[in-house]
Amino acid sequence: MLGARGGWRALRRCPSSIFSSSSFSSSFSSFSSSSSLPREQRAPAVRLRVRQALGAREAAGEVQVQGWVRSIRSQKEILFLHINDGSSLESLQVVADPSMESRDLTFGSAVEVRGKLVKSPHKMQNMELKAESIRVVGPCDTLSFPLKAKERHPLEYIRQFPHLRCRSNALGALLRIRSEATAAIHSFFQDHGYVHIHTPIITSNDCEGAGELFQIETSNETQKSAEKNHFFNVPAFLTVSGQLHLEVMAGAFTHVFTFGPTFRAENSQSRRHLAEFYMVEAELSFTESLQDIMQVMEDLFKTATSTVFSRCPRDVELFHKYVAPAQKGRLEQMLKNKFVTISYNEAVEILKQASQTFAFKPEWGCDLQTEHEKYLVQHCGEVPVFVINYPYDLKPFYMRDNEDGPQRTVAAVDLLVPGIGELCGGSLREERLPFLQSRLQRYLDLRKFGSVPHGGFGMGFERYLQYILGVDNIKDVIPFPRFPHSCLL
Amino acid sequence: MLGARGGWRALRRCPSSIFSSSSFSSSFSSFSSSSSLPREQRAPAVRLRVRQALGAREAAGEVQVQGWVRSIRSQKEILFLHINDGSSLESLQVVADPSMESRDLTFGSAVEVRGKLVKSPHKMQNMELKAESIRVVGPCDTLSFPLKAKERHPLEYIRQFPHLRCRSNALGALLRIRSEATAAIHSFFQDHGYVHIHTPIITSNDCEGAGELFQIETSNETQKSAEKNHFFNVPAFLTVSGQLHLEVMAGAFTHVFTFGPTFRAENSQSRRHLAEFYMVEAELSFTESLQDIMQVMEDLFKTATSTVFSRCPRDVELFHKYVAPAQKGRLEQMLKNKFVTISYNEAVEILKQASQTFAFKPEWGCDLQTEHEKYLVQHCGEVPVFVINYPYDLKPFYMRDNEDGPQRTVAAVDLLVPGIGELCGGSLREERLPFLQSRLQRYLDLRKFGSVPHGGFGMGFERYLQYILGVDNIKDVIPFPRFPHSCLL
Repeated sequence: MLGARGGWRALRRCPSSIFSSSSFSSSFSSFSSSSSLPREQRAPAVRLRVRQALGAREAAGEVQVQGWVRSIRSQKEILFLHINDGSSLESLQVVADPSMESRDLTFGSAVEVRGKLVKSPHKMQNMELKAESIRVVGPCDTLSFPLKAKERHPLEYIRQFPHLRCRSNALGALLRIRSEATAAIHSFFQDHGYVHIHTPIITSNDCEGAGELFQIETSNETQKSAEKNHFFNVPAFLTVSGQLHLEVMAGAFTHVFTFGPTFRAENSQSRRHLAEFYMVEAELSFTESLQDIMQVMEDLFKTATSTVFSRCPRDVELFHKYVAPAQKGRLEQMLKNKFVTISYNEAVEILKQASQTFAFKPEWGCDLQTEHEKYLVQHCGEVPVFVINYPYDLKPFYMRDNEDGPQRTVAAVDLLVPGIGELCGGSLREERLPFLQSRLQRYLDLRKFGSVPHGGFGMGFERYLQYILGVDNIKDVIPFPRFPHSCLL
Repeated sequence: MLGARGGWRALRRCPSSIFSSSSFSSSFSSFSSSSSLPREQRAPAVRLRVRQALGAREAAGEVQVQGWVRSIRSQKEILFLHINDGSSLESLQVVADPSMESRDLTFGSAVEVRGKLVKSPHKMQNMELKAESIRVVGPCDTLSFPLKAKERHPLEYIRQFPHLRCRSNALGALLRIRSEATAAIHSFFQDHGYVHIHTPIITSNDCEGAGELFQIETSNETQKSAEKNHFFNVPAFLTVSGQLHLEVMAGAFTHVFTFGPTFRAENSQSRRHLAEFYMVEAELSFTESLQDIMQVMEDLFKTATSTVFSRCPRDVELFHKYVAPAQKGRLEQMLKNKFVTISYNEAVEILKQASQTFAFKPEWGCDLQTEHEKYLVQHCGEVPVFVINYPYDLKPFYMRDNEDGPQRTVAAVDLLVPGIGELCGGSLREERLPFLQSRLQRYLDLRKFGSVPHGGFGMGFERYLQYILGVDNIKDVIPFPRFPHSCLL
């Protein structure tokens, strides 16, 4: 029944050492051709991803590459194709006999090419594929296909086609980077002994009492009216943050993190807000200093960014070359230097002394506006800036009183980055029972049974991607953006 | 401002080589003591996690361990404590002078112990900590604390305390295993060249037309009435599966996966259903054989399970010893052998010839019931069983017609495992445009522009954990279970 094993054995005959398969280690298995298909007379071809083919160190016989045609150029004596399968930004050049051309072989069509992998005579590419056969497995109606060959479509244009834009260079690169960044963030926490917690999406409490919530109901009408009650007995909402649930876990594991979707029902049409976005959140027990939290934020940011830059240099280059040309140098500087730290007091002083006129007048006790954040980042030299010790009245109940006056400031921190504004927010949490009396009973329970000083932070993942790549609109760094009046697919 | 640096430098003086820090590589940084606290006269202690302390290869001077007291035994000459910080199932034994005892030093309290790490004279443990000081940082009201010292609380009992149960041995072990399993699944896909996609949680389409949905609305009353319309202009739901969105991505990347929450508004009070659960889903392009999909399912299952078993042997042992004593042998057998494959036709024949009487009579064309699944797994020797080629009429529109008769069967597969029933479901997807005419326009678009044969599957993550650990109730393998009439925290 499981005849695919035959294909596996055949595959093992191919010396995998000829391919530099850094990120495809032991990955040949899933690309093996299946022997449950009618067997052809000739030996089965080794299935290669484009990235593997391009990175091969020597020529190889019968190989098979599958992907989508990115360009086609027919000459009298020779037919050139470029094939992309999403494994890299670069496409593989296929050299074929013009007789292999067919009506269905067009830009956008899906093809399976068999042939020999040889060194390319062109110095821009390492290897190319000499086709022995080309099979169009899925034709493409190029007239109605919204992407056009050899055109650089603006991000705004392809945003209209959420089901097809992943075929463009820019979104392809973005999604590979997003995948690598996700993995890098998971690795960072795992390497540092954090336990990963799936905090719930549906919750009966509202983390900060702030932010507008989505409420959940069953869609089944009969069930709704028959029960008259809520599915969960209580009103239920989509989470705005996993923090309170992480705090529960920080009472047992000391180092925990979560990385999942969070939701805000804000009717905001900005280039840095979404109704559904991802947040990286961590909570650290036995932490009595805001500096410890800030150190983790800085380390996380730098480690993830360095990993992404080294794992997909070409994809990152696309953004730093065509989307945000000044971004590369700025980020390299940022990775080399320590982030700047200023207090909220200092921030207000800086703003007051600014020659610039603000729409919102800076005043101690008022929240920092986007215009203020931008100015502060600029003032500090266009580098990431931690602002610490915010006024007590500005922040939610769980933040730790600094006791520098009667309820004057709390040990809170925001990380501001150029072009984006707030990227992370964190604080020491109030662990002292008397400071929390008259609050939520469960929250108090956590302080009653072996309470510890602790703190944590959250980082908006899409804003992180926006910042490192210099992408202007947040809708272009998430596969399926959700915002007011739009929920395509 | 960033005084924590001082602590870092002090830390580097400590030769990390004395600690076997397999899963805490380069992790000392985040455990460093902060120098922003009032400095004591003596040199700063090296902060160690319990797991690091227990695994240390040699004695060490001034160290600091923080955690919660798991047991306390006061003798005339000596005071014994066991400290756990969630980094491992085992606690670290602390040996102290009875004078260090205090009223607050109780079971459940949070403590910070400084002292010397020395070889333990007891053969059950490697190292122990000779305390020089014990500081209670958070006392615990043991009378109202629902967990009791040295008691093995049943899983049903601790389920009542979702905010405290992570402090029990069983849930602690479970959550460490869950974290490792999550990492192992991510690594499996990354190592095999899959791109990770965050498929959306809020969606305007209903994947299978099956399953009851949660609908979303803004909770803001004024916004609701003012707009009269939906927040997203269209009715929006919580996703039941990321499949259709993954299929979009499989049109650009060939190998994609997602691992996120999915939702069902079913009013089911079973031990294997939740309203919010996690699903691992993968989609493979250029795949013409169901065997290829099944091979990935089997490889994923075995690789993740082996990784979890080797990374947290003691945590797994807790379940295999106290929760499901027969599970260990069965799983070892399962890891060694190939999964069994039978067709739906064969399955119905086996059921018809069974001596057992079923509540639902087995009949070709009817869905397999839980009782049938259990019998099939038993019949095949209590091993995982793939059932393939289900009747056309039983399965959703996107599954590929096998063309073995007029709409007779489709290339679908379910993986059944002992004690659970269905763990995974997958299929080849119908890539042929004529078979799909009159369906959703966007789904058709995917077939119009370079369509490829492809297929995929989904695996219920909680059921996976239930199976490998032998946990009876699904509510005990997720940190914050959501089910009808219950949404605690």
